[in-house]
Amino acid sequence: MSGFVSFVSSGPGDPELLTLKAVARLQAADAVLFDDLSAGPILAHARAGADLVGVGKRAGRPSPNQDHVSRLLVDYAQTGQRVVRLKSGDSGIFGRLEEEIAACQAAGITYEIIPGVPAACAAAAAAGIPLTRRLTARRVQFVTGADVTGQLPEGLNMVALADPLATTVVYMGKRSFAAFAAALIAAGLPAQTPSLYAEAVGHPNQRLVRGTVASLAAEIGLMDSPEPALILYGPLAGAAP
Amino acid sequence: MSGFVSFVSSGPGDPELLTLKAVARLQAADAVLFDDLSAGPILAHARAGADLVGVGKRAGRPSPNQDHVSRLLVDYAQTGQRVVRLKSGDSGIFGRLEEEIAACQAAGITYEIIPGVPAACAAAAAAGIPLTRRLTARRVQFVTGADVTGQLPEGLNMVALADPLATTVVYMGKRSFAAFAAALIAAGLPAQTPSLYAEAVGHPNQRLVRGTVASLAAEIGLMDSPEPALILYGPLAGAAP
Repeated sequence: MSGFVSFVSSGPGDPELLTLKAVARLQAADAVLFDDLSAGPILAHARAGADLVGVGKRAGRPSPNQDHVSRLLVDYAQTGQRVVRLKSGDSGIFGRLEEEIAACQAAGITYEIIPGVPAACAAAAAAGIPLTRRLTARRVQFVTGADVTGQLPEGLNMVALADPLATTVVYMGKRSFAAFAAALIAAGLPAQTPSLYAEAVGHPNQRLVRGTVASLAAEIGLMDSPEPALILYGPLAGAAP
Repeated sequence: MSGFVSFVSSGPGDPELLTLKAVARLQAADAVLFDDLSAGPILAHARAGADLVGVGKRAGRPSPNQDHVSRLLVDYAQTGQRVVRLKSGDSGIFGRLEEEIAACQAAGITYEIIPGVPAACAAAAAAGIPLTRRLTARRVQFVTGADVTGQLPEGLNMVALADPLATTVVYMGKRSFAAFAAALIAAGLPAQTPSLYAEAVGHPNQRLVRGTVASLAAEIGLMDSPEPALILYGPLAGAAP
């Protein structure tokens, strides 16, 4: 009875952005361990009788201990159950997947990863823009704006991040964006670089705010919302429609 | 009769990695304009009677004129049809989406973008690895290894690309990877940085080759395959399983 873990990416929140494979894994699961962001209608695909276990982590609230989540995952799998570990967006991007994979490997549990729609791709799509463009946005990068303490991470590659010929998407950067923007501008990024604030992407209460790196740095600090948000900047962030 | 265009991301090729929304748009479409990489079983979701129009572009073969694709798209939409423009991976990433959006805007045609699973996310998932990891891979970036002539693009940000604390995914980089790798190593990236070659991800003939930036630079030149491929490098590229 060795069990099996499927790390299933649930996409940005819109239940229609689940993949067919994610739906199939949910339907077959004996137990589903889910984050807050992948709850709601997405869980309706699980079969009646499956264990649904919230292991929620959410910006600005105390996180459950990551070790506890990993232990729960291993415990379920070791009883021989088909376990789905549901993670929002694409599970390989800022999902702390490596810690749960390591726990599975240490316990001899086989796993698979089902990729999904990253929140960054959904945010750009919601704004009607691509993430890349020939010649002017030939590189796209995703970065976190906060370390585990909620502060701006140390040792960011500012040459990479202040590149005006890239599209950058900042995850978990709402609280630190004033400091982040100041560092970008100090590193040479024009303060007028187009920027997009995308909150609750794919949810009914989605909100998009367009501006510049400088203007959003001032505005975001005044927003009092518990919703998760991304910040995009680069030549495409101010484009259509 | 103004028509409507849905730019629908078809994911990396595995038909099970289509989203529910992509399937719904395919089922409702009067016309589907598709690339080679999004053909096959994915098109089976289109209703009987829909026009299926191949506008294939594929590495190493002559591309149809992008203007021609845009004109075809506008022509279909202007007859009042529901048009799906199917693009592989996530349509916003290296899909030349901006040119087709501009054509729609110029013609007054409304559009939407349905995001999808990027090939990079599918490649990492197939290899059993995440794209990010706390502290050691805090930034992930996607870049093209070839410009429209197939050569290494000029003006690449080598400080960004040679960063050992990032995961980098090179799209369309098979032919130029020897030159790309040499430039990375000259910019300070250790030649032994783990690297992964991922070909035909999500297709039955998927192939994964692990090595280092230096070893893959030598090996990839000897591979004679027309299949599309990605090259990942960074601290996670050599990890489990």
